[in-house]
Amino acid sequence: MPLNLKTYTEHFTNPLYLESGRILEPYDITYETYGELNEDKSNVIVICHALTGSHHCAGVYEGDKKAGWWDNLIGSNKAVDTNKYFVICTNVIGSCFGSTGPMSPRHPSHEPYRYKFPVVTIKDMVKAQRILFDRLGIHSVYAIIGGSMGGMQALQFAISYPNFAKKIISLATTYATQPWAIAFNKIAQEAILKDPDFKNGYYEPQAIKENGLVGMAVGRMAGFISFLSPDSMMKKFDREYRNTDGLYELFGKYQVELFLEYNGYNFTKWFDPLSYLYIIKAINIYDLSRGFDSLNEALSKIKSDLHLISFKSDILFRSSEMMEISESLDKIGNKNHTYIEIESDYGHDAFLVEVDKFEKQLVEILEG
Amino acid sequence: MPLNLKTYTEHFTNPLYLESGRILEPYDITYETYGELNEDKSNVIVICHALTGSHHCAGVYEGDKKAGWWDNLIGSNKAVDTNKYFVICTNVIGSCFGSTGPMSPRHPSHEPYRYKFPVVTIKDMVKAQRILFDRLGIHSVYAIIGGSMGGMQALQFAISYPNFAKKIISLATTYATQPWAIAFNKIAQEAILKDPDFKNGYYEPQAIKENGLVGMAVGRMAGFISFLSPDSMMKKFDREYRNTDGLYELFGKYQVELFLEYNGYNFTKWFDPLSYLYIIKAINIYDLSRGFDSLNEALSKIKSDLHLISFKSDILFRSSEMMEISESLDKIGNKNHTYIEIESDYGHDAFLVEVDKFEKQLVEILEG
Repeated sequence: MPLNLKTYTEHFTNPLYLESGRILEPYDITYETYGELNEDKSNVIVICHALTGSHHCAGVYEGDKKAGWWDNLIGSNKAVDTNKYFVICTNVIGSCFGSTGPMSPRHPSHEPYRYKFPVVTIKDMVKAQRILFDRLGIHSVYAIIGGSMGGMQALQFAISYPNFAKKIISLATTYATQPWAIAFNKIAQEAILKDPDFKNGYYEPQAIKENGLVGMAVGRMAGFISFLSPDSMMKKFDREYRNTDGLYELFGKYQVELFLEYNGYNFTKWFDPLSYLYIIKAINIYDLSRGFDSLNEALSKIKSDLHLISFKSDILFRSSEMMEISESLDKIGNKNHTYIEIESDYGHDAFLVEVDKFEKQLVEILEG
Repeated sequence: MPLNLKTYTEHFTNPLYLESGRILEPYDITYETYGELNEDKSNVIVICHALTGSHHCAGVYEGDKKAGWWDNLIGSNKAVDTNKYFVICTNVIGSCFGSTGPMSPRHPSHEPYRYKFPVVTIKDMVKAQRILFDRLGIHSVYAIIGGSMGGMQALQFAISYPNFAKKIISLATTYATQPWAIAFNKIAQEAILKDPDFKNGYYEPQAIKENGLVGMAVGRMAGFISFLSPDSMMKKFDREYRNTDGLYELFGKYQVELFLEYNGYNFTKWFDPLSYLYIIKAINIYDLSRGFDSLNEALSKIKSDLHLISFKSDILFRSSEMMEISESLDKIGNKNHTYIEIESDYGHDAFLVEVDKFEKQLVEILEG
């Protein structure tokens, strides 16, 4: 059966009450669906995206070359089988792919929000999705799946809306962002803020797309270090040098440097700097226990079956952090959770690139 | 007995023939000594410094507050006992603490070299030290000790000058810099080069000391991530936030962010940007096997007793890399080496801050 890829944007005029006490009003949410909703609406799977992801998680747009970011996992006869499930993926608020974010026109001036955009949290992102699903007449779903910041959302769904999802599958994430991850984000934040071309937030988006933004490229380079691992870099690049005659040239380059440069500067062509700052803020302050006395109290709200999947070489959100969630659940007597650690050298990126390492387990969870 | 700290600068007019084929001429080497040289000159210990270190590894200068960078290890009745040993530490060429580097006046114009400074390698740094020691009448030494880039120098001494040192102790380093470490350096390089205040290398040093250099601060932040570890950051900073009322302020700061900012910008007050670029280049192209058919062939040159010390949580130069050296030595039948891995949560920085974890082993090696 075809993927049946559809993209929509829904407009909301009611205020979205944010965790900060501020409101977002009005706002849009862009989302994508695949497969067909069955009659009793029991086949919905929600996919949550990571920091720089979007609602486009599967299939290929007409005229486009690159498939959605989890296309190896989602589709006809794939682990998340669109012949069977109706899959929805929304672009989070604060992002820059259609949902309302810092560069969206602000009501009523139509000028971009820029710094007037409120800080949004993972909880807010999840709340906005819940409101969207309500409008679509979907009041509960079969499963929610996400990795990295998507895994944060999946866990937050489990706590904020205990009766909403039958199964939650959270990959490569944590219960609260640790200083190590905040430190990586800090490099990006500092480099962007101090870049003169960022113009203190008053940049022209087109100028950045055309000329790049050094600070953002540098930040993305730091991001790539945190997404990869020493071993995956060894495998990918070794000590390959672009020009062996030029070893003693001060700016001669190793393959790994070319990779970082390319991906760093390319990033500035397709992602918005203010969205980046707002989303890393959301990640930095992510903490499942906020509003509760303890993590255990937060986790005790969970009614969904919870499945945690970590990757051994992930240096950004370490296996040990996922294991802590599992151990906390054990401690409070939760019987409906599993935790597996996947052997992989690919670091944090494994949840995107080594789908073959965990798709069997994912199918078992979904079919089980 | 007093430390007997003395600082000297030696001037050399003969050309230094560099690995690149270029020459450095004339050049200075600044060095420090502690303790007293015994009559048969058999009590010399050479200390090699890391990327941003200097010849000042022990004691406190008059009017200064901060002691030398390995003061917890070196001194009267310390592991490297200056009552017994005559300790020498030189500032490497390319650095900015007295030895000739890119901001030194170029002969005969007296203008700073800047980019006209030749690329120097770890092998060149070691060669320059060997020439200095010759001038001082020291033709062999009891031991050479270094960590990180200092550990690279110690290993390079063992290979370049097999009869020079009786014992080599190399900590927290590798046999060739891996793409993971090169990637961290790349962040600094890119951020510095593209910083408008760097003025393509034609900056005024005083202006940078006074106003800071964003690119260098950002690079240093990346450096700190690589020197620490997820666990040490947890212990040091946890998720402490500067102002809990301001959690939803876009630029509210976690303790770890303040630490990175402070150390990042402070760094620009005491280290030279061009020296930084030249030294990370030397680290990037460091490879013990260069000029040999293999690492094993290079290691087969070693005659000194070689002692390798790694730190379990070091994410910059991993234990596994040190172990590879040890395994290679086993393979080629070298009987005079030891390898130990120290349990520590402090990451790469452990070689500087957790001296108590390895000083006993160090004393055993030196006394053994």
